Amino acid sequence: MQQLKNIDGASTLRRRRITHPDKPLQLDSGETLAPVDIAFETWGTLSPNKDNVIVVCHALTGDQFPAGSNPITERPAWWPRMIGPGLPVDTNRFYVIATNVLGGCMGSTGPASLAPDGEPYGLRFPTITIADMVRAQIALLDNLGIDKIFCVMGGSMGGMQVLEWARQAGDRVQTAIPIATSARQSAQNIGFYEVGRQAIMADPNWCDGAYLAKGTRPDRGLGVARMAAHITYVSEEALKQKFDRRLQNRDKFTFGFDADFQIESYLRYQGATFVDRFDANSYLYITRAMDYFDLLDTENALSNIKARICVFSFSSDWHYTPDESKALVRALNAADIETSYVSLETTKGHDAFLLEEPEFEAALAGFISSAADTHNIAKPSNSENGGAN
Amino acid sequence: MQQLKNIDGASTLRRRRITHPDKPLQLDSGETLAPVDIAFETWGTLSPNKDNVIVVCHALTGDQFPAGSNPITERPAWWPRMIGPGLPVDTNRFYVIATNVLGGCMGSTGPASLAPDGEPYGLRFPTITIADMVRAQIALLDNLGIDKIFCVMGGSMGGMQVLEWARQAGDRVQTAIPIATSARQSAQNIGFYEVGRQAIMADPNWCDGAYLAKGTRPDRGLGVARMAAHITYVSEEALKQKFDRRLQNRDKFTFGFDADFQIESYLRYQGATFVDRFDANSYLYITRAMDYFDLLDTENALSNIKARICVFSFSSDWHYTPDESKALVRALNAADIETSYVSLETTKGHDAFLLEEPEFEAALAGFISSAADTHNIAKPSNSENGGAN
Repeated sequence: MQQLKNIDGASTLRRRRITHPDKPLQLDSGETLAPVDIAFETWGTLSPNKDNVIVVCHALTGDQFPAGSNPITERPAWWPRMIGPGLPVDTNRFYVIATNVLGGCMGSTGPASLAPDGEPYGLRFPTITIADMVRAQIALLDNLGIDKIFCVMGGSMGGMQVLEWARQAGDRVQTAIPIATSARQSAQNIGFYEVGRQAIMADPNWCDGAYLAKGTRPDRGLGVARMAAHITYVSEEALKQKFDRRLQNRDKFTFGFDADFQIESYLRYQGATFVDRFDANSYLYITRAMDYFDLLDTENALSNIKARICVFSFSSDWHYTPDESKALVRALNAADIETSYVSLETTKGHDAFLLEEPEFEAALAGFISSAADTHNIAKPSNSENGGAN
Repeated sequence: MQQLKNIDGASTLRRRRITHPDKPLQLDSGETLAPVDIAFETWGTLSPNKDNVIVVCHALTGDQFPAGSNPITERPAWWPRMIGPGLPVDTNRFYVIATNVLGGCMGSTGPASLAPDGEPYGLRFPTITIADMVRAQIALLDNLGIDKIFCVMGGSMGGMQVLEWARQAGDRVQTAIPIATSARQSAQNIGFYEVGRQAIMADPNWCDGAYLAKGTRPDRGLGVARMAAHITYVSEEALKQKFDRRLQNRDKFTFGFDADFQIESYLRYQGATFVDRFDANSYLYITRAMDYFDLLDTENALSNIKARICVFSFSSDWHYTPDESKALVRALNAADIETSYVSLETTKGHDAFLLEEPEFEAALAGFISSAADTHNIAKPSNSENGGAN
């Protein structure tokens, strides 16, 4: 099992401190946070005029490794078909930056980090919002000396960050690609994540959030939270195709509470492996940030956006439905923002954006490359094959 | 808080022992169970030729009080608009019998009951199936001297029992009304209930099922299970209409983990109140029975059915979808069973069958009364108003 609590000592992670002692991170809650470190990874080469930057934002349980692999968890990239030489996000042409979100547990400052008093924050960590996550990312880009962002992209909660980027850094973001997301967290999704939070908080090993100091972890609660959430990531059709009512390594019911069905075994595995790579308090804070997200919370919320936006949705996604994407597109159109919308047919549900979806990849590649041409971003020479990063 | 563990002493409940010392209940698992008591309630008057019996089957968390009120929980009837004088199930015309299912916790023998050794069964209770529940109900009707069943009806898990009644007691059931149900539990639903079971089992107060003997109860785990399930009972549209992103008695976020949103407060309330009226082990056993339900598990599974069947579904029900009802109707039609199908438009989701749905009530009333006319069941005299039970 990975000892996530030791992650602050993981020297393999790239990370920058984005706060100064006299300049903490200002949060939506009114609180401030310092120091704040943001872990990140990059691929490709920054062009001399720094015009080829693509920021990739991760979903709830993602990390800064959409490409490559995570040296802590040793898990492979979560977007392996999307980012790399010759792929839709072509690292021969673009300089790709991915961060671990503020509040996360893969090297960025979060509730598992040590507070200035030397103890893990736990519930003393301030409540954060999607806007706070993006504030921290903008500070990182400033720190790296990067002003203009050719493109910000991401799915699910990553898509919320994309929209927030376009709003917060209106003059800097040229293109934004929110995928399988929503302008505002729905009541149903708030409900599902509240179930997860209650499952974590019901675990006595959670210790009111102070489990790291006590040398324990609320693995069972976090596992249940993951199981509940995971069902929403897959369409009913996909579950039927993949599992239906098939039994797990047996030919008849055991008439008990073992995992008789493959779907049970699968969900238990999802829960059991998730706790090895994720911090329970991070799960609380990040889901809370999603609950609080409402791009349309003020009347002129979109007036600052100058990016060209391309919204993607998947027909069988019931976590962030095509109807929610359409509502987003309508709001963007109403604000005179140049918006495209690509609605894709698939049975794979919400997780489609992470899976093999050739039509999605082709549409994304086409949009990015055409936008890059519009912005005169240099094309890779034909002789260049591979060799990124 | 209701002391469910004391329910065996509740003298207000009507109940019959359906086993004899030399004739235990035979279960699908191969095990036997004795003694078995089945708690039930009745409304209306049994006609002299006993031709006016309607059996009402309850859903996962229901009880034998679709009409009247539960004397233990003091909760009102769960089908108040459906059963009573002049209502669709007209108690001036019909004799209505409702039981608490085998494995339940409202007076029928279940895991909270005392085993022959004087200790609560807990996990020593045998695993049961929907067919076992119906076996016990048939034994009760035998015990009451009732042979012919004019109609069996119920929603959700009640609908599964209805289908099983029609199959098991083919010669006795004249009419069957499965509502908002499925011929087989889907992978998605097995998954949701597995989440609930894991939440219960993760609660240290569950004590491997022996919590009653230890004087404790896994309330937090059972509460989380209820919250997760409850989301599936309501459509996304209904959650949006009822709660959307409205805050609970506050005008801004508290930036913490309180129930800021109405949907959170609502779900927490559902979880907190549920544990006062339901036994956690019953939740395990009954959801397991639903998992195991597959009406079409053998080639000639439907060959015994002689009832006329009317299937009802609700457009926004994503727990037991209209597509699942259509699949059921196709299977019934293919087996040459006289089948009607009523598909109702509503935004209320799965719980629509329990809520005010005038079109549903009218269609049900029409079907029942027309079928009763066909079977020459005496109509109530015009002078009779009220006075049922």
